[in-house]
Amino acid sequence: MTKKKKEASDASMSKEKPLILVTNDDGVDAKGIRALADVARMFGRVIIVAPGSAQSGKSHAITFSSPIRLRKIYAEKDFEIYKANNTPVDAIKLAQCVLLKEQKIDLLVAGINHGSNSSSSIFYSGTMAAVIEGCINNTPSIGFSLCDYSANANFEAAKDVAYKIIKSALENKLPENICLNVNIPNIALSDIKGYRITRQAKNHWQEELEERIDPIGKPYYWLSGYLLDLDKGEDTDEWAIQNNYVSIQPVQPDLTAHSFIKTMKKWKFN
Amino acid sequence: MTKKKKEASDASMSKEKPLILVTNDDGVDAKGIRALADVARMFGRVIIVAPGSAQSGKSHAITFSSPIRLRKIYAEKDFEIYKANNTPVDAIKLAQCVLLKEQKIDLLVAGINHGSNSSSSIFYSGTMAAVIEGCINNTPSIGFSLCDYSANANFEAAKDVAYKIIKSALENKLPENICLNVNIPNIALSDIKGYRITRQAKNHWQEELEERIDPIGKPYYWLSGYLLDLDKGEDTDEWAIQNNYVSIQPVQPDLTAHSFIKTMKKWKFN
Repeated sequence: MTKKKKEASDASMSKEKPLILVTNDDGVDAKGIRALADVARMFGRVIIVAPGSAQSGKSHAITFSSPIRLRKIYAEKDFEIYKANNTPVDAIKLAQCVLLKEQKIDLLVAGINHGSNSSSSIFYSGTMAAVIEGCINNTPSIGFSLCDYSANANFEAAKDVAYKIIKSALENKLPENICLNVNIPNIALSDIKGYRITRQAKNHWQEELEERIDPIGKPYYWLSGYLLDLDKGEDTDEWAIQNNYVSIQPVQPDLTAHSFIKTMKKWKFN
Repeated sequence: MTKKKKEASDASMSKEKPLILVTNDDGVDAKGIRALADVARMFGRVIIVAPGSAQSGKSHAITFSSPIRLRKIYAEKDFEIYKANNTPVDAIKLAQCVLLKEQKIDLLVAGINHGSNSSSSIFYSGTMAAVIEGCINNTPSIGFSLCDYSANANFEAAKDVAYKIIKSALENKLPENICLNVNIPNIALSDIKGYRITRQAKNHWQEELEERIDPIGKPYYWLSGYLLDLDKGEDTDEWAIQNNYVSIQPVQPDLTAHSFIKTMKKWKFN
């Protein structure tokens, strides 16, 4: 006979402090998510629910053709860690619907990502997808990314930045339909010139698909590339981070080209 | 000794006709993509590059931690079919960078999706991610979805709709930074009331994570749910399809909440 082991976060959590959900796409063991959890714990009780393995570039992917899993790996007073499979958005859905079904999440923070999520990278990022998923479900949500892809990146300045932005977002009450995409230059705190509220730069990636031949003679391709620097505006996320500012892009989960609706209504379809 | 088999689409293609790339997220064998290719072939030479297996819900996910593959499975004059692994956006990158590196894609069409991609579903959809990826790279791009999830859906009316919209988009010249998300109600052509230019409804999914217990006693979860009907606006994609109109949502690959930038510039971060 099987024994039902139900995951439910209610054991070690105080009820009065804000409830903060922390996730990422680099996986639960990444240095960046531990840095962000350290910061989040200054504001409330923290639950990490993050992918068990690296899920960079998984965007808003969800898993419905195979089952998903959730496993508690650590708990102390007001701090719990769960591994979720597969994607960051799966993790958010498991956290909201399985772990916290009766509880309101006061804040969702994601990251600190190893590497920037500026410009069109926001579309590929699992970290920012988790943030957008939170926002779609009316949870105040902020994503943090440090412009350093290395596993052993130094998150000290980023932690200070994250603290200040979370504090400001809680004080100013982030509106329900807006979330934030924060990109932090990889420099010492004393070299950061300040904070810029930015728009998403209109850049895209220059792909480099390297062809190799497998042992039986068939080609395969490795996807890599670099972000082109096409948009020269000084109000962009790219400009900010290249000029030693923290970029804060307010993001809305609406892809409609509202300004084009009027023009398009004149089109004929027959 | 291995033999290098390089994929390159240049054999059977005329140069004078428009080049149309067709993809989807239901996989290269889906009924919907064949229906869309039938329509696209009325406008030019067609290359299908689509996932080898179903990739619904894979959003803008890309594969860079393992190799990706591309394989020609069919060719006749002005019509070729390729299987690409893994995701729809991988397929677009393989098509653009490996197959068509010197050639301009005149139009990218994706679908016809088995099931709607209205409201927040646009964020999960691999079909619409392929369209947005095309748009980011300045290719005129249109996604088509029929509001019927069944594998054997009837695409006859949808083919007529797709023809009219492609014709109009080519005549009116879709701007570089705008793509289209077309949702088609699952009714006979004679019952379609017309075409509405819409905005993305502010709805989200009500998740239902069904818990089951595996043979060794551990829980697993199946993700399912339904789209909530929260946004009652009559200018939305949801309203259009529920009222027997074709919904055409102009989409821009920019998630910035432009209207909130001014407000946010007053926030303090110290």
